[in-house]
Amino acid sequence: MDLLNTYLIYLIPVFGLVGIIVMAIKSAWVTKQETGDASMNQLAGYIADGAMAFLRAEWKILSYFVIVAGILLAWSGTTVATSSPVIAISFIIGAFLSAFAGYLGMRIATKSNVRTTQAAKTSLAQALKVSFTGGTVMGLGVAGLAIIGLGSLFIVFYQMYVVNVTGSNVNGEAMAKALDVLAGFSLGAESIALFARVGGGIYTKAADVGADLVGKVEAGIPEDDVRNPATIADNVGDNVGDVAGMGADLFGSYVATMLATMVLGREIVSADNFGGIAPVLLPMVIAGLGLIFSIVGAAMVKIKKETDSVQNALNIGNWASIVLTAIATYFVVQWMLPEGSMNLKRDLDASGAIKAGSLVFTKNGVFASILVGLVVGTLMSIITEYYTAMGKRPVLSIIKQSSTGHATNIIGGLAIGMESTVLPILVLAAGIYGSYFFAGLYGVAIAAAGMMATTAMQLAIDAFGPIADNAGGIAEMSRLPEEVRHRTDNLDAVGNTTAATGKGFAIASAALTSLALFAAFVGVAGIEHIDIYKANVLAGLFVGGMIPFIFSALCISAVGRAAMAMVEEVRRQFREIPGIMEYKARPEYEKCVEISTKASIREMVAPGLIALITPIIIGFAFGPEVLGGLLAGVTVSGVLMGIFQSNAGGAWDNAKKSFEKGVEINGEIYYKKSEPHKASVTGDTVGDPFKDTSGPSMNILIKLMSIVSLVIAPHLNSADSTNKMMQKQEKVQSMNVHQIHVDKKI
Amino acid sequence: MDLLNTYLIYLIPVFGLVGIIVMAIKSAWVTKQETGDASMNQLAGYIADGAMAFLRAEWKILSYFVIVAGILLAWSGTTVATSSPVIAISFIIGAFLSAFAGYLGMRIATKSNVRTTQAAKTSLAQALKVSFTGGTVMGLGVAGLAIIGLGSLFIVFYQMYVVNVTGSNVNGEAMAKALDVLAGFSLGAESIALFARVGGGIYTKAADVGADLVGKVEAGIPEDDVRNPATIADNVGDNVGDVAGMGADLFGSYVATMLATMVLGREIVSADNFGGIAPVLLPMVIAGLGLIFSIVGAAMVKIKKETDSVQNALNIGNWASIVLTAIATYFVVQWMLPEGSMNLKRDLDASGAIKAGSLVFTKNGVFASILVGLVVGTLMSIITEYYTAMGKRPVLSIIKQSSTGHATNIIGGLAIGMESTVLPILVLAAGIYGSYFFAGLYGVAIAAAGMMATTAMQLAIDAFGPIADNAGGIAEMSRLPEEVRHRTDNLDAVGNTTAATGKGFAIASAALTSLALFAAFVGVAGIEHIDIYKANVLAGLFVGGMIPFIFSALCISAVGRAAMAMVEEVRRQFREIPGIMEYKARPEYEKCVEISTKASIREMVAPGLIALITPIIIGFAFGPEVLGGLLAGVTVSGVLMGIFQSNAGGAWDNAKKSFEKGVEINGEIYYKKSEPHKASVTGDTVGDPFKDTSGPSMNILIKLMSIVSLVIAPHLNSADSTNKMMQKQEKVQSMNVHQIHVDKKI
Repeated sequence: MDLLNTYLIYLIPVFGLVGIIVMAIKSAWVTKQETGDASMNQLAGYIADGAMAFLRAEWKILSYFVIVAGILLAWSGTTVATSSPVIAISFIIGAFLSAFAGYLGMRIATKSNVRTTQAAKTSLAQALKVSFTGGTVMGLGVAGLAIIGLGSLFIVFYQMYVVNVTGSNVNGEAMAKALDVLAGFSLGAESIALFARVGGGIYTKAADVGADLVGKVEAGIPEDDVRNPATIADNVGDNVGDVAGMGADLFGSYVATMLATMVLGREIVSADNFGGIAPVLLPMVIAGLGLIFSIVGAAMVKIKKETDSVQNALNIGNWASIVLTAIATYFVVQWMLPEGSMNLKRDLDASGAIKAGSLVFTKNGVFASILVGLVVGTLMSIITEYYTAMGKRPVLSIIKQSSTGHATNIIGGLAIGMESTVLPILVLAAGIYGSYFFAGLYGVAIAAAGMMATTAMQLAIDAFGPIADNAGGIAEMSRLPEEVRHRTDNLDAVGNTTAATGKGFAIASAALTSLALFAAFVGVAGIEHIDIYKANVLAGLFVGGMIPFIFSALCISAVGRAAMAMVEEVRRQFREIPGIMEYKARPEYEKCVEISTKASIREMVAPGLIALITPIIIGFAFGPEVLGGLLAGVTVSGVLMGIFQSNAGGAWDNAKKSFEKGVEINGEIYYKKSEPHKASVTGDTVGDPFKDTSGPSMNILIKLMSIVSLVIAPHLNSADSTNKMMQKQEKVQSMNVHQIHVDKKI
Repeated sequence: MDLLNTYLIYLIPVFGLVGIIVMAIKSAWVTKQETGDASMNQLAGYIADGAMAFLRAEWKILSYFVIVAGILLAWSGTTVATSSPVIAISFIIGAFLSAFAGYLGMRIATKSNVRTTQAAKTSLAQALKVSFTGGTVMGLGVAGLAIIGLGSLFIVFYQMYVVNVTGSNVNGEAMAKALDVLAGFSLGAESIALFARVGGGIYTKAADVGADLVGKVEAGIPEDDVRNPATIADNVGDNVGDVAGMGADLFGSYVATMLATMVLGREIVSADNFGGIAPVLLPMVIAGLGLIFSIVGAAMVKIKKETDSVQNALNIGNWASIVLTAIATYFVVQWMLPEGSMNLKRDLDASGAIKAGSLVFTKNGVFASILVGLVVGTLMSIITEYYTAMGKRPVLSIIKQSSTGHATNIIGGLAIGMESTVLPILVLAAGIYGSYFFAGLYGVAIAAAGMMATTAMQLAIDAFGPIADNAGGIAEMSRLPEEVRHRTDNLDAVGNTTAATGKGFAIASAALTSLALFAAFVGVAGIEHIDIYKANVLAGLFVGGMIPFIFSALCISAVGRAAMAMVEEVRRQFREIPGIMEYKARPEYEKCVEISTKASIREMVAPGLIALITPIIIGFAFGPEVLGGLLAGVTVSGVLMGIFQSNAGGAWDNAKKSFEKGVEINGEIYYKKSEPHKASVTGDTVGDPFKDTSGPSMNILIKLMSIVSLVIAPHLNSADSTNKMMQKQEKVQSMNVHQIHVDKKI
């Protein structure tokens, strides 16, 4: 056992390696599945080529960004004692692995789609197996790379800054430097995630809205129809937005959660058998266990008969991985954390005694916090499903309001979206309160880590959706028999539900992660309070609250503009290329792909820069406490706007889908192409950028702004500061609130 | 001068009395104008009757509420030493005067509308004179009643609790009790304001949306057409929503701003010639001056020729009243406030010296804060106008996006609404920062008081809009000649602009007022910080941020439901009453009036109770600091949602109106009834509840929740507390954060 204690730190990347090996085996299995006939292969080829074209264009821009940001980071690392230029290397590795995770996912998704279509010719069981294995490859790739990257870098920096400098592995201030440099990894990952999510989100919705507006509404052809010039762009969008974007997103969340918990863990006085760093190692160990049990859970996802429930199969796998991870975590917590109580270093007085009124907690408290995290994640998923599922009150109310026209459909959806913030916020507030109650801010962070532990499984389920969607698209474009399409539709419908619950889970984890990062920031910046009774902090709160609004506005209007360009291009092709409608001429798919690619690359820059630069400006101009106010504002407003937009979009989508089977309004049954259905299509189109561009970007926005703040925190900490910028900063502060001495005598 | 100093307190209600006398003279003048022919009088009669029917139904419900709340307040007043059961009387008077102010405004509006139509037969100048005089009557009535009410009650309570108890007029702790009891007046006023605004907002938009959906869209008849059964309800709505609702709203704001400044003023150590209470008296004196100069400004609003600009005439009057008030305020500040510096009592140590790091300020600082308030108000109006005016970039972008359908029009409007939060928030943040810089939290409050000083004039301009709108409706329903309609349209168009700028002004004043109330609450509750680094305060911030979302959802869906009921009733009448379309049968207007009345009364209850009860629950269950977090969350989120919804609605409205004169999209000109126009009607309909129900209600929501908190603050202040509830509360607190002692030894 002693040997295990000593070498546990080296075991962590091994968990990741296991994940990558399993991924490689599964990936090889998918590759060797049949790919169907020439027409299917041609379509799949267009999609794969379009997706790669987007990734190449995106990477080109992002590489400039990474180089510039890396140079700035390296320079800034030289200016304070608690950082180092090495942070730039850490940043670049994070950025690279995040992009690579997205790429891996997308490559397997563009392989799995056509193979799923082919498998659907045989049976539903086989189609599920191919598409879900594709999702699993992505999930294991993302989680495996994250654990290998973070775990290995931690070993290196721990050696460099802690063991080599202090001569022992004590959990001292030297660890602060190691973790600050490690924060660069998370910053790199999350930056790429933001651009990938926003860029991918704009791409997919510009293509989707554009294809729908001309194809479905004007030309009256079905959704996935080879005659529609924008249809390939639409299918590419599913891959670059829902797969690559989401992969980078969850890679970033996963890393940020672990990092925040590690930073808070450093502050804990822990008499453990790991040289006092058990609270730092714990989140990575939990993530490693989660990865292993995700492999177990994934193996349990299978059906036998055509009539078996796909949703049930996914649920069994998901619950197995969560429950097994929770049980294993219990034993790990018991083993790693010390008996007796833990507390923060800052709560000790000069004599080493705990100050009155300080919070102390035990290892059972830590495990209770993890359980709180799991409960919060589960409840958020259930609530999200309620608000977006067919047949439930929210979607039914939108259907009813479609009967009086476009406007009432929109009003209904907006009202449902706003209403849907209530329960998630109450759950989240209770979760914050509860996890804090059991283990302080470390509890809040470890609750998020617990939620994120089975990221590999969550992502497998999430990625399965767009693969099935694409498979259905290929089936329809290749005009395959009804029963094939029926099987892919079945998978697609389940995919829509998992997409909705995945979003609920993602926003909950992002909120807890942001709070953990927020707490880590406060510790590193060396401030005692963030007092919103101070006018400048309150002003920061207002400005922070506004950021998600302008960010959403930029995303939504980018989709609007790009979709209009797409509409004009599709109209032009219908007009100028004779024979498209009779299947005699091939539309110029690549023109539409190019429009989406260019628009998304161009439009992702402004929102990305807002997220990156705002904390830097506010932090250096007004100090860490105002920046804390800004972060609180961004987090609260971002979570609200994220839930509002995602759920409104999801509800509109399913209100529209409900018309496919026919809906009853005031005693009459309405189907597709009825007036109420047309109104529901308007709602769905409005909801598209809400639920797939701006809504899910909120998660990354709030995390990224928190990470940027964490990275610049040592520079804002005046106690630590050695550079001139800080002296200037102090001057500003002293002119600031609570500090104006006009006349001391009365 | 000494005599003036002594009796200044008695002069304050006299300002109000002057306002009421001028109002009576102007009201008599309006009443004696010609009312036109029998048909016009009949229509005006329907409108006036419908409006009174609504008010009676509303008052009935509200009187129950006032009685129950009054009893609770009287009881709670007995439980702490710093309050008194007299607060219930104060509350009832506030509620009564607020309702009465709304009634006065509505009565004059329903008289002025038909008289304006009649005057429009003569000239534009005369029509402006009648409609604007109607508006002035309302403005003076609201401001006059507020000053008389607040000023007189202050005299009474000052005598009762300060002079009679302490035997002198020192500005001591006794004043705290006087102001706490006075806060009941503001609570009464703001409670009625919320119900009036929400109820009126639901009424007017249910009728408007319902009338439009069947009349304009389905039956293809013009907006104000006697054949439409909902048209009278629509015109009644303009009066109960835009006039009575707004009157109660601004009455509440005006009172709340003065009260918050007075509460903060009490805490100032001021060596003035008014026994130390100059900072308490100052906001009422400024309001009195503003009322007098509003009368002067209103007298300057006139045009001579048909071609003169109505907007210019209004601007001249508005600016005259603001500039004159600012100049007079300068002299009043110089006269009333002491030489040398002022500071808060809590910043003195035991020896009477100022603690290090405390904020001190001078009378010039106070005046500078007032100027900051005026600048903020002006900038907010200009920004709001930019985002909602025809011919500017935001509205033009929505017009362009109407060319690709309903969905892109909606996406465009939502994006503009979100984008439009940026500049107002930056202005507001700078305003908070600036006014605090010059005079601390008293500066923030007095900035709001400065902005609100010319409320009488602002309200005259605001109320003129719906009067002109109604006059146009009567002209159209009576099928008067083109030139009459042309004149009323001219006035109506100006009214739309003033409505938009008025909303910008209202949200700015509400934000500053809420912050002032927030600061007053912190002082009265006796807490030092509101630290969002504490998990429970942060949870409060999240819950607070969510309130405006659920509040908006309730308002919007109430409009949606009531509009659907209206649609069904109108369809029924068209179907079952033969001859309506040929002007042979009179529609059953009263049925539609009844639907709107019942729906609005029923639906206003839930949002109103949320605003009233949430702070009470949070305050007593989790303590004042968490309640502070809740208030900050409500204020930030409420301001953002208010701006977003009001501006999106205003922009959609004017995008639709632009089609009346024809708009150019990609080289083609589109008019009414074109496809892009139809898309723009959808946007306008979605925007209706945004801009006239939920958006403007945000102002009252944030103020009301702050006032409720201020009123319960003495009960949450454990130092002061004598009741059992507090002891229980402390128990909860001690189980709370930062307090968990599991084991003190390690």
